[in-house]
Amino acid sequence: MTEFIPPATRWIDLPSPFPMKRGGTLHGGRVAYETWGTLNDARDNAILIVTGLSPDAHAASSDADPTPGWWEAMLGPGKPIDTGRWFVVCVNSLGSCKGSTGPASIDPATGKLYRLEFPDVSIEDIADGAAHVTRELGIERLACVIGNSMGGMTALALLFRHPGIARAHVNISGSARALPFSIAVRSLQREAIRLDPNWNEGRYDDATYPESGMRIARKLGVITYRSALEWDGRFGRVRLDSDRPDEEPFGLEFQVESYLEGHARRFVRRYDPNSYLYLSRSMDWFDLAEHAGGDVLDGLARIRVERALALGARTDILFPVEQQEEIAEGLSRGGADARFVGLESPQGHDAFLVDFDRFGPAVRGFLDAL
Amino acid sequence: MTEFIPPATRWIDLPSPFPMKRGGTLHGGRVAYETWGTLNDARDNAILIVTGLSPDAHAASSDADPTPGWWEAMLGPGKPIDTGRWFVVCVNSLGSCKGSTGPASIDPATGKLYRLEFPDVSIEDIADGAAHVTRELGIERLACVIGNSMGGMTALALLFRHPGIARAHVNISGSARALPFSIAVRSLQREAIRLDPNWNEGRYDDATYPESGMRIARKLGVITYRSALEWDGRFGRVRLDSDRPDEEPFGLEFQVESYLEGHARRFVRRYDPNSYLYLSRSMDWFDLAEHAGGDVLDGLARIRVERALALGARTDILFPVEQQEEIAEGLSRGGADARFVGLESPQGHDAFLVDFDRFGPAVRGFLDAL
Repeated sequence: MTEFIPPATRWIDLPSPFPMKRGGTLHGGRVAYETWGTLNDARDNAILIVTGLSPDAHAASSDADPTPGWWEAMLGPGKPIDTGRWFVVCVNSLGSCKGSTGPASIDPATGKLYRLEFPDVSIEDIADGAAHVTRELGIERLACVIGNSMGGMTALALLFRHPGIARAHVNISGSARALPFSIAVRSLQREAIRLDPNWNEGRYDDATYPESGMRIARKLGVITYRSALEWDGRFGRVRLDSDRPDEEPFGLEFQVESYLEGHARRFVRRYDPNSYLYLSRSMDWFDLAEHAGGDVLDGLARIRVERALALGARTDILFPVEQQEEIAEGLSRGGADARFVGLESPQGHDAFLVDFDRFGPAVRGFLDAL
Repeated sequence: MTEFIPPATRWIDLPSPFPMKRGGTLHGGRVAYETWGTLNDARDNAILIVTGLSPDAHAASSDADPTPGWWEAMLGPGKPIDTGRWFVVCVNSLGSCKGSTGPASIDPATGKLYRLEFPDVSIEDIADGAAHVTRELGIERLACVIGNSMGGMTALALLFRHPGIARAHVNISGSARALPFSIAVRSLQREAIRLDPNWNEGRYDDATYPESGMRIARKLGVITYRSALEWDGRFGRVRLDSDRPDEEPFGLEFQVESYLEGHARRFVRRYDPNSYLYLSRSMDWFDLAEHAGGDVLDGLARIRVERALALGARTDILFPVEQQEEIAEGLSRGGADARFVGLESPQGHDAFLVDFDRFGPAVRGFLDAL
């Protein structure tokens, strides 16, 4: 499959073999990352960003790659994550297809793509990969680790498994464990891909790409990433320009359908379906309670971090704010100065990617006070 | 396709030709129904039930068909809809595949299945079909029309287009117009069916049935019919019995996935995919504001009904309670004694099919006071 790796993305080799949590080891693996700003002499101004399922490491523009990144409004000189003060590292998750090793990478043992021969990827493995990058960059202790969505899980796993790796933590629209509604949504997204005959147990190529499955998976994602409230105001019942613009039977008619279509078109063929399946599943498996006798607050309380902010949008149905409230409560029990903020953003789970008027000041305020 | 028409279901022929709202006419059409109880001499004790997308006319058991119906707990002697007092009629929607004429019926003009040659079905057509059944049964004026989900739309269209047809109305988890979140969900369900190669522009048969598409559509339905809150308590993160019961890659692992699977299995091959597409689309089109210069409250206010109850579950994300509140407000403006009740059921849109402890007393109280 055509790879879409941003030009400024670099790599750090993982130890080889690199043991994976659910079994198997990785040989010759690597983790992709980008950086902004300068690490100071004390090496105490570093911030690590761990991402959601689909983003690459190009969170923001830089001299090396002036194209806007996926968090452009949040990251840069004078921005909420001020690269004039902080040295910021964003890693691409292990298992992804944006530069880090994953199912779309070549298995050095066979010279062929891993595909489904890639070992199971867990959130803990992604966290271990990010921890390795941090250390290889000469950072003993991060000033802060910021995780969004799936990255909120990764950040918690990182803090849990690598005590002392960060002084502070910002958890954005994340959770300490997957709950059944989000598991059901992701399971259905995966099923749509698996049912596409072109998926073919992972043995697709550009000519036989599982486009239908990826379209359904993406549209279901967009439906659950947003909120009904936002769409009521944004689309209402507005129709496309002509009365019946799509001549296909049951084709597009309403603006909201066209919006979903645009999202699907921009996504399919730019993300590896097997990577999608692997990372989607890693979220279902994640449960910090697993390490604490089944009690998720106990799991969180075992994390040692000085200060933390857990925030999210009250309209998020995939990672509801109760989960961020739980994170703040658990980290507080562990001795952290941890605060929960539920924002009134109408945009649902995706709010952190668009509602910078609310998420910007919240993150800036926390970082400025560090 | 194998038809699944309950044994006690009967039919009433529609006028032929029967004009359809969006164009075209139906020849030799019919509407299926079942009844319970006895119409009194004054013919003023009749209740009409109009249904959601998938139910048939077999709402409850009877001497003619003792198998439990889809609303068994609500309908029968001494039950909230007391068939000792009321003569109850439940109609199967025009366009469905459970006895009423629809895309899976034979077109008398060609002797072949209609499939996509069936004219567009609107909620208004379904309402006209139900009105015809009512009149043919000798009922001039219904004591009450009860509509659930899509049936809530049908009931409003019926009241709007057939002034005086009912003295009272119970709208359960319904709405006066489709909003973009539910349009998006239904659009994606339809796309999943359309993308299934076996759908083949509606020309499938038992051997090439679009099972994958129907599975995805049904699972997406179940996800949006229920609520995250209910699933947290019901499934949590409980896994299936063995650690990896499903040997398929990315197969079932959590109870919630198995629950979805069960729903999908019980649905596919028991509902006609083309009927599903037609009725799904009819909901997107429905907007009572269309008949009132774009103002939905004005549309509702043009309905003449004496008493009304609009109720729903506060956890419903598909037909949110704000829509039932809107119905009560609009009907009140029209002079009705209309009340809104938002129930605390955790089961989301499906609550009226399961939470009889809450829905039962609410409906019983309203009907008893008529």
